[in-house]
Amino acid sequence: MTTQEILIRARQEAQKPYPSNQVRNKALSEMADALIARTDDILAANAKDCEASSGILSPVMMDRLLLTASRIQGMAQGVRDLIALEDPCGRILNTHVRMDGLAIEKVSVPMGVIAIIYESRPNVTSDAAALAVKAGSAVILRSGRNAWESANAIVKALREGLAKAGISEDRIQLVEDKSHDSAAELMHAKGYVDLLIPRGGAGLIQACVREATVPCIETGTGICHVFVDEDADQDMALSIIENAKTSRPSVCNAEEVLLVHKNILDSFLPKLKDRLENGKHPVELRLDEACRKVIGGKAAGEKDFDTEFLDYILAVGCVENVDAAIAHINTHGTHHSDAIITRSIPNAEAFSRGIDSSCVYVNASTRFTDGGEFGLGCEMGISTQKLHARGPMGLEELCTYKYVIHGNGQIR
Amino acid sequence: MTTQEILIRARQEAQKPYPSNQVRNKALSEMADALIARTDDILAANAKDCEASSGILSPVMMDRLLLTASRIQGMAQGVRDLIALEDPCGRILNTHVRMDGLAIEKVSVPMGVIAIIYESRPNVTSDAAALAVKAGSAVILRSGRNAWESANAIVKALREGLAKAGISEDRIQLVEDKSHDSAAELMHAKGYVDLLIPRGGAGLIQACVREATVPCIETGTGICHVFVDEDADQDMALSIIENAKTSRPSVCNAEEVLLVHKNILDSFLPKLKDRLENGKHPVELRLDEACRKVIGGKAAGEKDFDTEFLDYILAVGCVENVDAAIAHINTHGTHHSDAIITRSIPNAEAFSRGIDSSCVYVNASTRFTDGGEFGLGCEMGISTQKLHARGPMGLEELCTYKYVIHGNGQIR
Repeated sequence: MTTQEILIRARQEAQKPYPSNQVRNKALSEMADALIARTDDILAANAKDCEASSGILSPVMMDRLLLTASRIQGMAQGVRDLIALEDPCGRILNTHVRMDGLAIEKVSVPMGVIAIIYESRPNVTSDAAALAVKAGSAVILRSGRNAWESANAIVKALREGLAKAGISEDRIQLVEDKSHDSAAELMHAKGYVDLLIPRGGAGLIQACVREATVPCIETGTGICHVFVDEDADQDMALSIIENAKTSRPSVCNAEEVLLVHKNILDSFLPKLKDRLENGKHPVELRLDEACRKVIGGKAAGEKDFDTEFLDYILAVGCVENVDAAIAHINTHGTHHSDAIITRSIPNAEAFSRGIDSSCVYVNASTRFTDGGEFGLGCEMGISTQKLHARGPMGLEELCTYKYVIHGNGQIR
Repeated sequence: MTTQEILIRARQEAQKPYPSNQVRNKALSEMADALIARTDDILAANAKDCEASSGILSPVMMDRLLLTASRIQGMAQGVRDLIALEDPCGRILNTHVRMDGLAIEKVSVPMGVIAIIYESRPNVTSDAAALAVKAGSAVILRSGRNAWESANAIVKALREGLAKAGISEDRIQLVEDKSHDSAAELMHAKGYVDLLIPRGGAGLIQACVREATVPCIETGTGICHVFVDEDADQDMALSIIENAKTSRPSVCNAEEVLLVHKNILDSFLPKLKDRLENGKHPVELRLDEACRKVIGGKAAGEKDFDTEFLDYILAVGCVENVDAAIAHINTHGTHHSDAIITRSIPNAEAFSRGIDSSCVYVNASTRFTDGGEFGLGCEMGISTQKLHARGPMGLEELCTYKYVIHGNGQIR
C-alpha cells in the first residue's frame, strides 16, 4: 500500500466514533495475546534484521535491535499494563454554565491520527501502537530500516489482536515504503496527521521539527545538569551524581554536565573524583580550568558542555553561584531535566523558578523523568518543548479536547 | 533595532524570573492609563496610516484600521479588564507524591516568548500585548504594514506603562523591519520564540503554519455549519441560522453553510427563504440542486461549500441524515464551530461525538465561540488545531507547565 493510501485509511478510521474503553481494553488484551502467540514469527523476522545489520550497527545498537522470547513477553506485558489505566478520553475537563443556560463542556477526545517515526527499536512498535489504541487514536508507524522485518511481524500480530476485538485493523498501520520519502510524506500530511512524534536520535528529531508542516512534538534530547550548591549535603550530592550519570548513561534523563559552586571545589572535587573514577563503571571527567586546578585530569573541550554524551563521560564546571548555574543551564541545556543539590530554600526556589526545563529537581536524581516514575503509568516519550506537552507524555498528552455546548435556542 | 536584537532581548527577558501577578496587574493598569494619556499621539499616527491606505484598502478594512478616541478608550478598558482575571501562572495542575517521598508537582508557568504576526488592526497591538503581559511572557509584535504608525504609537504608550510599573520595557517589543524578512525571521527563530500566533486572514495563517519551524498555533479560519435535523424545532432553527449568519458575518464563528435534512426541505426552505431574504440584511442563498427544486434561486458553485464568505452569503445543501451531515462537515469544514438543531438525543450525541471541531453546538448559535462568551475573560484567538489549544485561547492556553520535583536524596 502507498503511504498516501495508509494516510487516507487512518483518517477515515479516525473520523468514525472512537471505540469505548471496554472495547479498546479488549483489543489491548488480544494484542498482547497475539504477540505471545506469534513469538516464533517475530523472532524469525528479528533474526533476519539482526543478520542484515551484523557488522554494521554498534554493539549497543545491535542489543537494542535484538529480540528474545523474554523481551517479547515484556512487550506483551507492556501492552497489557495499559488496560488498568484510566480512560483518557471523555473526561470532563471543565464546565461553564452561562446565565442564559448555555452549558459549555470541555471534554477530552482522541487526537485522531498519530504518526510515529522511530529508529530501530522493535519494542517501540508495540509500545507506541498500544498507547495510541488506548488513547483512542489511529496510529501510523514508520519504523527504522534496520528493524523493518521485526516491525512487520509485530504489527501483523497487533492487527490480529485488533480484529479479534472487533476493531478495524486500520487503527494500526505500518508504512511500507522504506525510503526517506515515506517519512517526508508523513511530515507533510496536513489534514491527515494530527500529531507527529519522532522517537530516536537528535538527527531524526531535529529533521522532523524542521521539516514537518503537521503538528509535531519535539522529544528526547537531554543534556541534563546537576548543580551542587555551596551548602549541599555532599554525600547526597555524590550519590545523586553517581546515580544520574551511571545508572543508565544511554538514556535522555542521564546527567551530562555537573556544575559545582566555586566555594566547595576543594572539599568536593576530590571526593567526586574518587567516587566516579573508582565506581563499577569508571566515569571520564572532563573539567574546566578551575576544576582542573584542584584535581587535575582531562581538560573539557569546547563542545563538552553542549554534548549529550550518552556514555560514561561527565563534563564538570565551576560556577559563581546559583544564578550563574541557572544562566549556564538555560543557555547550554536542552530544557529536559536539571537538578540542584542544596540545603538553601531560597536557592532551591530560585533554581526551580529560574530553570526553563520540563523537569526541575531539588535534591533528587534527574533519572526520575519518566512516565512510569511520575505515576502516568506509561509514556510515549519526553517532550522538551513547551507547547501541548512538556516532560513525560502519557495518555492524557496523546489526547486533545473539544467543547460541546448544549443550548435550547440561545443566540448571541 | 534589528529583529535579531529584538529576539535576543525578549529571550533574555523571558529567562528572568517572571513578575508577580501584583506587578503584572500594576503594569496593565499603567498601560491602560498610558493609552489614554497618549490618545492624541496615537490618533495622529493613525491618521498617517489611514491617509497612506486611503483608496487602497476596502471600506471594511479602512474601518478596521481607523482609531477614534472612543476606540482607544475601548482598548484601554480591554487592558484593564485583564487585571481582575485569575493569575494563569503558578497554578498547581497536579501533585504526585511517591512512596519514596519524592514530591512531583506539575505547575503552570509562562510560555516565555510569544510572537504575534498580525494584520492591520491597531487594537490587536494592545490586546495581544496585554494578554502576554498578564500571562507572564515577553511578547514580540509584528504589525501589518498599513497599521505601522499606529502600532508604534500604541507600543510606545504600552512600554511607558511597563516602565512605570518597574517592569523591563523589553516585555513588549515591536518589530521595526517592515519587510517580509522580519516575519520570516520570527517564524524561524528556534530557541528564541516559544509560541508563534498568527492573527489575520487565511493567507497569513497558512504561511505561518507552512513555514514556521517554531511552535505555531493555527487560528481562525471558520467555515461553520448549521445542520437542521428532520425533527428540529424549525422556529428555533430559523432564529439560530439568522443569528449565526447575519449578526456579524465578517467573523470566523459566523455560519457559512447550512445543511438541511432531506425530509424537511418542503416545510423548512420556504420559511428560510422568507426569513433570510427579507431580513434587515438580506442574505444571498446559494443552493444545491435538491434545494433549488423546492425554492428556486441561485445555484451553488463548485467552491461554495468550501468557502469562508465572511459576507451575507449562505451555501445551502441537502443531506440524507445526521451521518451524512457529519461526514460533510468533517470533510468540508475547518474544525472550528458547527451546530445541530434537533430534538433527537441520539442524533445530538452522534453529532457532538462525530464532529471533529473545536466547538460543537446542540441547539445554539455558532456565534458563541469566543473567549469572553465561554467565560475565559479574554482571548488571543480561536485555535482550529488539536495540539495545545483548541477553540478560544485564553490566558491558560498562553501558558505552559513544568514539573518541579522535591526530594531528599532520592535516586533511581
